[in-house]
Amino acid sequence: MTAAKGRFITLEGGEGAGKTTQIRRLTERLRARGLPVVTTREPGGSQGAEEIRALLVSGDPGRWGAVTEALLHTAARRDHLERTVWPALEAGQWVLCDRFFDSTMAYQGYGLGLGRERIAALQALALDGFRPDLTLILDLDVRSGLRRAAARAGGEDRYERMDIGFHERLRDGFRDIAAREPERCAVIDADADADTVQARVWDAVATRLPVPTGTAAP
Amino acid sequence: MTAAKGRFITLEGGEGAGKTTQIRRLTERLRARGLPVVTTREPGGSQGAEEIRALLVSGDPGRWGAVTEALLHTAARRDHLERTVWPALEAGQWVLCDRFFDSTMAYQGYGLGLGRERIAALQALALDGFRPDLTLILDLDVRSGLRRAAARAGGEDRYERMDIGFHERLRDGFRDIAAREPERCAVIDADADADTVQARVWDAVATRLPVPTGTAAP
Ligand SMILES: Nc1ncnc2c1ncn2[C@@H]1O[C@H](COP(=O)(O)OP(=O)(O)O)[C@@H](O)[C@H]1O
Ligand SMILES: Nc1ncnc2c1ncn2[C@@H]1O[C@H](COP(=O)(O)OP(=O)(O)O)[C@@H](O)[C@H]1O
Ligand SMILES: [Mg+2]
Ligand SMILES: [Mg+2]
Repeated sequence: MTAAKGRFITLEGGEGAGKTTQIRRLTERLRARGLPVVTTREPGGSQGAEEIRALLVSGDPGRWGAVTEALLHTAARRDHLERTVWPALEAGQWVLCDRFFDSTMAYQGYGLGLGRERIAALQALALDGFRPDLTLILDLDVRSGLRRAAARAGGEDRYERMDIGFHERLRDGFRDIAAREPERCAVIDADADADTVQARVWDAVATRLPVPTGTAAP
Repeated sequence: MTAAKGRFITLEGGEGAGKTTQIRRLTERLRARGLPVVTTREPGGSQGAEEIRALLVSGDPGRWGAVTEALLHTAARRDHLERTVWPALEAGQWVLCDRFFDSTMAYQGYGLGLGRERIAALQALALDGFRPDLTLILDLDVRSGLRRAAARAGGEDRYERMDIGFHERLRDGFRDIAAREPERCAVIDADADADTVQARVWDAVATRLPVPTGTAAP
């Protein structure tokens, strides 16, 4: 018996770009095709990684230096891969992940100034070269994203409280990542209502990955 | 005004080798010379690093994979350096540290099998090439060390509970590290009473570092 090969799709973008909203919609749509879908998020997605997440997302903006922060995110990522993502892919699941290593590149590499090389080398060392099959980068004007995020509930706002220049570097960083890896990354214009963005997301997925028709009913 | 240059001395070795005992004695002896001494430990030694330590030292032996564990230790180390060690060295202090990066090399590189290269590359990426001025490796028969450690109180025993082969790889690892970096590392025979080991430690420090006479009275 050979299991169907799973797929690993990541959603990336700044605060309030619509990642969590769109991952939920994409999940429903893939499930309607009969595909087995697991959704997860970073930092987090496994017991250990969620404990690391708790250290990262709250508290003072200056609580961790940039290098420490990159290491903590990468530690959480490795745990998440070992405990959640890799087993699911081996079982033939489609894994949709809310943020992945491009967020470390954008936030710590571009936003906090550690630079591309250092973050890329760290990911290579830590993840054995593992990469997503497809990355959807939700691109949105920084102020619109922050406005959306502010209207949302929840106390995990350490990054939202960083200055506007930081968020601009993030956005530019995500676009630069996509320009450097066009086969892996699709930039989605996220400045539209959620239905329109959903249609754009679906278009990118269907164009770039062969979406098989599953066995279950829609 | 130029401050006196601080020194960074690390104590390494397996469980129960006598690191904590000897660091206390060395601290007293250096202070008696009038030197300003700060003692610290890893994982930990700063607020953030102590929070990471709490994730590492307790719980099931299989709680973290080896790569994740190496990343967490290295994250804690970076925080410890930024918040505690580097500021103390800049202020001219002598910093004595109970475990440092050689423990990551021995435990994760040799003991858990990640290998030298990967750990060395990770430390280089994470620590900007920073190294101790002197490392004292307390070398002791594995069973004697574990017997000493078991007699000691405290619940931080995740590593102590690893199998004996693990502890043998650790000991061999520490010796190999010392053989590769003889200028930085001194191997101390720790199979003797604490006074005798203390004399050996002092001998190594006085031989390898110019210990200035401080200004305070003994
Ligand atoms: N296309 C959209 N237009 C307007 N508001 C949106 C849109 N997509 C999501 N939102 C709302 O904006 C907020 C942030 O969306 P969310 O999906 O949580 O973003 P992210 O996960 O990228 O931070 C949520 O309150 C969400 O309901
Ligand atoms: N030279 C020695 N001979 C016998 N017991 C020792 C010696 N040095 C330390 N001990 C005792 O062994 C135990 C472990 O010593 P400790 O300094 O905590 O080791 P480590 O910090 O390397 O794990 C402690 O209870 C300590 O009092
Ligand atoms: Mg979200
Ligand atoms: Mg100790």
